[in-house]
Amino acid sequence: MTSPTATPAKPRLLTGDTPTGKLHLGHYVGSVENRLALQDQYDCFFLIANKHAFTTRADRPDDIRQSVLDIATDWLAVGIDPNKSAMFIQSEVPAIDELTFFFAMLIPFNRVMRNPTLAQEIKDKDLGDKYPFGFPMYAVGQCADILAFRPAIVPVGEDQIPHLELTREVARKFNQTYCGVNSQTPDKENVAAGGLFPVIEPKLGRVKRLVGTGAPNADGTLTKMSKSLNNAIFLADDADVVQKKVMAMYTDPKRLKATDPGETDPAKNPLWAFHETFNTDAAWVAEHRDMYQNGKVGDVAVKRKLVEVLNALIDPIREKRKHFEQRPDDVMDALKIGTRKANAVAEETLALAKQKMKQDFFVRTLQVE
Amino acid sequence: MTSPTATPAKPRLLTGDTPTGKLHLGHYVGSVENRLALQDQYDCFFLIANKHAFTTRADRPDDIRQSVLDIATDWLAVGIDPNKSAMFIQSEVPAIDELTFFFAMLIPFNRVMRNPTLAQEIKDKDLGDKYPFGFPMYAVGQCADILAFRPAIVPVGEDQIPHLELTREVARKFNQTYCGVNSQTPDKENVAAGGLFPVIEPKLGRVKRLVGTGAPNADGTLTKMSKSLNNAIFLADDADVVQKKVMAMYTDPKRLKATDPGETDPAKNPLWAFHETFNTDAAWVAEHRDMYQNGKVGDVAVKRKLVEVLNALIDPIREKRKHFEQRPDDVMDALKIGTRKANAVAEETLALAKQKMKQDFFVRTLQVE
Repeated sequence: MTSPTATPAKPRLLTGDTPTGKLHLGHYVGSVENRLALQDQYDCFFLIANKHAFTTRADRPDDIRQSVLDIATDWLAVGIDPNKSAMFIQSEVPAIDELTFFFAMLIPFNRVMRNPTLAQEIKDKDLGDKYPFGFPMYAVGQCADILAFRPAIVPVGEDQIPHLELTREVARKFNQTYCGVNSQTPDKENVAAGGLFPVIEPKLGRVKRLVGTGAPNADGTLTKMSKSLNNAIFLADDADVVQKKVMAMYTDPKRLKATDPGETDPAKNPLWAFHETFNTDAAWVAEHRDMYQNGKVGDVAVKRKLVEVLNALIDPIREKRKHFEQRPDDVMDALKIGTRKANAVAEETLALAKQKMKQDFFVRTLQVE
Repeated sequence: MTSPTATPAKPRLLTGDTPTGKLHLGHYVGSVENRLALQDQYDCFFLIANKHAFTTRADRPDDIRQSVLDIATDWLAVGIDPNKSAMFIQSEVPAIDELTFFFAMLIPFNRVMRNPTLAQEIKDKDLGDKYPFGFPMYAVGQCADILAFRPAIVPVGEDQIPHLELTREVARKFNQTYCGVNSQTPDKENVAAGGLFPVIEPKLGRVKRLVGTGAPNADGTLTKMSKSLNNAIFLADDADVVQKKVMAMYTDPKRLKATDPGETDPAKNPLWAFHETFNTDAAWVAEHRDMYQNGKVGDVAVKRKLVEVLNALIDPIREKRKHFEQRPDDVMDALKIGTRKANAVAEETLALAKQKMKQDFFVRTLQVE
C-alpha cells in the first residue's frame, strides 16, 4: 500500500563496471553517457564489481582497492550524482553473494560452462586451464548482481549479452520453481504472473564498440579501445596527453601527403570513427570527410579539430576529477550512501527470495556505518 | 587484549549436518556422540547446511525447511545444549557466502572438479551430467562453512576428508597470498606466522561407518546406514519400530536354525556390528559371540538383547524429542540464539579477511531479530 504523499517509485536501473583501471572514452560512449541520460528517469544503481576483479587479479588486492576508488572518482567526475544514483561496492552487499548461492542451484553446470562470453574471456585473457573456480562462478554471480535489484532496465555492452541471457534463464527458473509461474508465461509477464524476478531485456549503448587509437589487427580490423592494448584515451588524461594521443593516432597508412585521397571508412580509419562518435557538428564532419576523401584536407587539420572536440568533452570531466581526487573522503561518502541504498533494495530482494524458497527463518537488519 | 575478569576463550569446534531428514544411529555414532562429548571442552558451532540441501533438492523447498527443523529437534533431543553450543542455520550467516566468493578466486577450477568426493557423489546420486553449478560450488562453500569459524577442530565423517583437504588448501593459499605467510611454513604454524586461517586436521568419529539393517551389496559388503537405502534406525523411531527393525535385521543367511554355527564378523553380519558398536557390556558380547559362532544361541535372543540396548539409548532421546516436537518455538529460539552467536564469529572473520584483502571499505553490523 502506498501512502498518499509518497512519490511514485521510479523504475530501477542496474549496471556497473569491473574496477580494472580508470575509465576511457570507450566506456564513456559505451555506457557512461547512457547512464547520465537515464539518471533522472530511473532509480539508478551503479555497481563497482570488485569481486569480479579478483577472478584474474586475486594476487593484487591493493590494485583492486585503488581501481575501486578510481572508478568511483571517474563516475563523480562525469556527472553521476550520488544523491540521485546509488554508486556502490559489490563486496559490501552480502545479499548478492547469498543469491548467487541459491541461483547456482538452479542453473545446470554445463549451461554455465558453455557460456560463449566465458570461453572468449578465457581465450582473451590467455587463462588456458589455469583459471580459478571463481571465474565460471562469476557468471552466476552476475545474475545475482542484476537480480538483487529486480531492475526494469540493464544497460550493458554487447559482449555482456550472453551473461544477461543466463540472468534471464535464472529469473524464469526461479519464478517457475518458487513462485508458481507457468513455463508458458511470456517473459514480460513473469512479474505480473507472480514471479519475483523480472526477465530483463538488455539495453545497449549508442556506440557498441569504440575503436582504439592504434594500428589495426593483422586481419585489417581496428582494435577495441582497451587499457591493456595501450590504445585508450582516458577521461583523466591531461589536455596535452589527449593532443599527443590524437596527433599520433593511426589513420590511413597509404596516404603520404595531404593531397592524396584518404580513407574515411570509420571501420578502417579511427580518425573518422572518433569524429563520427564525438563531433556533434555533423556539417563540419560531412564537409571534411568529403575533403579528406578528395585530398583537400590533411590529417593534421582533422586531428586538431578532434583534439578540440575531445578536450571540450574531457575538460570539465578532468576538472571535476581533480576536485574529487583531492577529496577522497567525499568519494568514500558517496560510496557509503550508495552502498546503504543498494543494501536496502538487495536485502528486501533476498528476504522475498528466501520467503519464496521457504528459508525465511529469521528477520535481519544490516547497517553500514 | 583480554580483560582480567574474562573467561579464557575455549577453542572453537565446527561441524554440521545437511538437512536430509531425521538423524539415525549412523549419525549418532559417526558424529553426534562425538559432539556431545566435546560440548564442554570446546566452543561448539553446529551448522545446519540448508543451502547444501538445495544442490539436489532445489525443487523441494518445503521438505528442506522441515528437515532443518527435524535436525534441530534431533540435536536438542540428543542433548546438544543451545546455551553452550551454537546450533545455527547456514543461510542465516551471510559471511559464509561472502567468503565462498573470495575463496573461489583462490582455488583452480580443475582442483575443485577433481575432488574425489564430488565425483563419487555425482555417481551415488545418479546425477550424470545433470547437476547444477551449485553442486561443485558447494565444495568451495564448505571451505567457507568451516573457515568462517576459524575452528581448532572439525569432527567429520571419513567421506568428508577430501573436502577438508580443499579447505586446508584454501587456508594455506589465503594465508600466503594475503597474510605474508611463507609457503614453507608448516600447517600447524600458519596462524602463529600471521595467517588468518588455521590449517585444520580432521577429527574422525568413533565409528566411521555404521552399517544398515539390510542385506549386503552384490559384492557381499554391507551397506552404509542411510535413509535413502531404507536400512536405518532413526533416533525418533518408537520403541516398537526399533524392535521391528531389529527383529527383521539381516544376519547370516546360511544359518537356518539356532544350532547352526553363525557368522559373527561385523563386516558380514550387521547384528554383531550393532552389538559391538552399541552394547557397552563387553563381557556379554564376548560370551554371546562365542555362543553364536558355536550354535549355542539363536538370532532371536541376540536380537532381543540388541533391542534392549538400542532402546536404552533411544528411550530418553525419543522422550526429549517428543518434548521439543510440542515446542517448535523453543526449537526456533535455540536456532536464533545459535545463529546470533555464529554471526558474531563469522562477521568478525569476514571483517578480518576483507582487511587482509584490502577490501575493508565500510564497517557493518548485522542483527538477527
